[in-house]
Amino acid sequence: MSASALSDVGLYGLAVMGQNFALNMASHGFSVSVSNRSPEKVDATVARAKEEGNLPLRGFKDPKSFVDSLSKPRKIVLLVQAGAAVDATIATLSELLEEGDILVDGGNEWFPNSQRRAKELEPKKIMFVGMGVSGGEEGARNGPSLMPGGPREAYDALSPIISKCAAQVDGPCTTYLGSIGSGNYVKMVHNGIEYGDMQLIAEVYDVLKHVAGLTNDELSATFTDWNQGELQSFLIEITAVIFSRKDDLTSSGHVVDKILDKTGMKGTGRWTVQEAAERSTAAPTMAAALDARYMSGRKGERVEAAKTLKGPSTIPQVPKAQLIEDMKAALYCSKICSYAQGMNLIKAASEHFEWGVDLGECARIWKGGCIIRAAFLDDIKNAYIKNADLDNLLVDPFITSQILERQAAWRRVVTLCVASGIAAPAMTASLSYFDSYRRARLPANLVQAQRDFFGAHTYERVDKEGVFHCLWDDTHKEIGDIAGRMAGEL
Amino acid sequence: MSASALSDVGLYGLAVMGQNFALNMASHGFSVSVSNRSPEKVDATVARAKEEGNLPLRGFKDPKSFVDSLSKPRKIVLLVQAGAAVDATIATLSELLEEGDILVDGGNEWFPNSQRRAKELEPKKIMFVGMGVSGGEEGARNGPSLMPGGPREAYDALSPIISKCAAQVDGPCTTYLGSIGSGNYVKMVHNGIEYGDMQLIAEVYDVLKHVAGLTNDELSATFTDWNQGELQSFLIEITAVIFSRKDDLTSSGHVVDKILDKTGMKGTGRWTVQEAAERSTAAPTMAAALDARYMSGRKGERVEAAKTLKGPSTIPQVPKAQLIEDMKAALYCSKICSYAQGMNLIKAASEHFEWGVDLGECARIWKGGCIIRAAFLDDIKNAYIKNADLDNLLVDPFITSQILERQAAWRRVVTLCVASGIAAPAMTASLSYFDSYRRARLPANLVQAQRDFFGAHTYERVDKEGVFHCLWDDTHKEIGDIAGRMAGEL
Repeated sequence: MSASALSDVGLYGLAVMGQNFALNMASHGFSVSVSNRSPEKVDATVARAKEEGNLPLRGFKDPKSFVDSLSKPRKIVLLVQAGAAVDATIATLSELLEEGDILVDGGNEWFPNSQRRAKELEPKKIMFVGMGVSGGEEGARNGPSLMPGGPREAYDALSPIISKCAAQVDGPCTTYLGSIGSGNYVKMVHNGIEYGDMQLIAEVYDVLKHVAGLTNDELSATFTDWNQGELQSFLIEITAVIFSRKDDLTSSGHVVDKILDKTGMKGTGRWTVQEAAERSTAAPTMAAALDARYMSGRKGERVEAAKTLKGPSTIPQVPKAQLIEDMKAALYCSKICSYAQGMNLIKAASEHFEWGVDLGECARIWKGGCIIRAAFLDDIKNAYIKNADLDNLLVDPFITSQILERQAAWRRVVTLCVASGIAAPAMTASLSYFDSYRRARLPANLVQAQRDFFGAHTYERVDKEGVFHCLWDDTHKEIGDIAGRMAGEL
Repeated sequence: MSASALSDVGLYGLAVMGQNFALNMASHGFSVSVSNRSPEKVDATVARAKEEGNLPLRGFKDPKSFVDSLSKPRKIVLLVQAGAAVDATIATLSELLEEGDILVDGGNEWFPNSQRRAKELEPKKIMFVGMGVSGGEEGARNGPSLMPGGPREAYDALSPIISKCAAQVDGPCTTYLGSIGSGNYVKMVHNGIEYGDMQLIAEVYDVLKHVAGLTNDELSATFTDWNQGELQSFLIEITAVIFSRKDDLTSSGHVVDKILDKTGMKGTGRWTVQEAAERSTAAPTMAAALDARYMSGRKGERVEAAKTLKGPSTIPQVPKAQLIEDMKAALYCSKICSYAQGMNLIKAASEHFEWGVDLGECARIWKGGCIIRAAFLDDIKNAYIKNADLDNLLVDPFITSQILERQAAWRRVVTLCVASGIAAPAMTASLSYFDSYRRARLPANLVQAQRDFFGAHTYERVDKEGVFHCLWDDTHKEIGDIAGRMAGEL
């Protein structure tokens, strides 16, 4: 391309994700300008573009020439570290941009930050998009799942580019999710679900290894087999590979056994759990996965605690083949509950912020490119196509039938974990979620009675309209509807 | 008292809590000035003070005369609604206060708000204290648990008053917790623990009623009996009363059966769960209790879901007396895990904010006045007296012995719930916490392997120092310590 022609799109921030996404866009024929705070990455990216087949990509080492190289309305994707670096980059670039230009932040950003930035850019009439990008380095290069939220007009301008660069499964793995914040939010919940999936698989591993005594090779074969059926997914697939991997660093055994059981994290899982609490939405499976990471971090304490806190002395024996079948069913049911929680969290936020997120579309754009890509997202997509306002995934007739078929196995597995003393926090949290949701009457009446007893918090009745308060000790009577008293005194 | 004498202490905000706490202070011989935004409450409070034995309490209807009526350094307790009303009240009063005066907010405030207010008052050298007050209306009048955090100097000035007004069990149920924020935080965690306790009791109720078929009278007798032993506590005591209460509104049956199973809440439970995530501290029992409230709120959905999501067709039969004994043990163990979580959450925040909270003192000041007051807080207090830096309550030798004695029963109960399809989310969360914490090696190694696979997040090894990254597919080799590459690229 000529040095003076204007590029279709700009990418600022050339760490691995940024480089890869720039090359992705260029390899789809879009002319790309790239820039970065430190200039060496610019040269490296330009060199990669040349190596990978003279892709239409130009590097710029100062913001002005970078911005000037773009056709209008300018479209710039930022892939810099979430937080302060995004603010600093926006401050620099926005000085050079004009009305109608579009800034897209592709980082894992806390959604209120995107909402704030959109507001800050409003006076300049620069359109701001928060776009979740999932799929890691590999996805960024070859087709990620892209979750954009921002002005519809901005999406329409970006769509020809991002629809081509996204993974292609059942259409491009991107869609217009809603106004600013929605894209970051959907990505955050995606990550929360990812936490849940990973923890559930880890629990399955724990039981199969420690109760059924499966070797790594048997585990690999089991996950390879599962990846052919209803559990087919990226995480199941890589788990099969992981168990097969020999340790070439010591030439003995498998890598997985050499890895320390302390898990790191980057924040999105925590946000999901905090947001679930904020939106009054139960998300116990994702919360259990987050807690499991925290517990894993207390390695030294656990090693000490294991010396005195002894579990059951005998572990029930279960035929290996039966247990593998049961685990498969339990994993499926537990995953469904986790996705149900995630979908309802998006729904709650979408209603609160009036984003109008299409949950079926969420499931669809997760089918390719991203970490939680899985065959059964099709069933989830279809559930919301059939009923966009579905209260809960669990009551979709197809999902219901799948769970009911498997619930006996699921209960056997959880019972086995409890009896063996093997923690399965995410799997049990899913089951508790299921058993709570399908209960017409929960014991919450007692909690309301207690709250009314010590705090005069009042309650509703099953047989009468109104708000009630009882003076519980013997010398008083229930005083009936106290709505009037409420306003004045309580 | 003469109209011109200066009062020992002021109280602003005369809803029920404020009135009661003012009368509490006055009945201990302290001269109290009271005021309120709307003047009728002032008259009502003065009238009550007269009725209750000419207590030394004077009412003031404007802020200036209220402030002028106080001896210096002035000490004013605010009991107004948390949030904006506190800011507005502080704005009004701080104009009239002088260097060295003390403002105490007794509301259930989000602790960062107290930290902000303390900072805002610094230029005026007004000392600000955030003080949790537990015990509801009754506690406020007759002796609450008081959890103050703020400048030590302010506490020393307040101590003669609040130490007298607090509940008296094993000393006054108040202590200096630490600098600003610590008091609100300890109160917040107290409420999170309260959520957990209430939910655990509700689960016990659910199983005893639906599996063992206990009547309300039998439930009342059971809780009355339990209140004699290691479970002795305010919540167990009132639960026994609740089950005994006949419904005088319809003259048939018991009130508890007429109460709608939808639970309200006020925010502190949610904050606890969000803060636990923020502090990287697992708090699954409290989180399960919060989720249970959210699930209870979806009453209409549950009634619908119950029609199709059928649980196990048969419920295991267990001898009634045996089940009651098992439930008692399960409740004890589950509670301990919940308190362990709460204590560790306070510990994490105390370390982060450098509050230096004494966990044994926390347990001690909860022994009276507050909702979670319980005999076994003595054991918790003693655990921290023996070892102030205890990693976890579970590894205190006495607590360990108590749990090990009961764990078989606990596991029987959870197994029964799973097999019966009766959700026991808090009890199972506690058991998962126990089984995770006592595990020297968790399956988190697999999670780390997955994270390294798709995100190059690296891992540690059990057999070598360093940070490692594996290129997992067949064509590559593990590349060893990549700390250098980390800094540059990942």
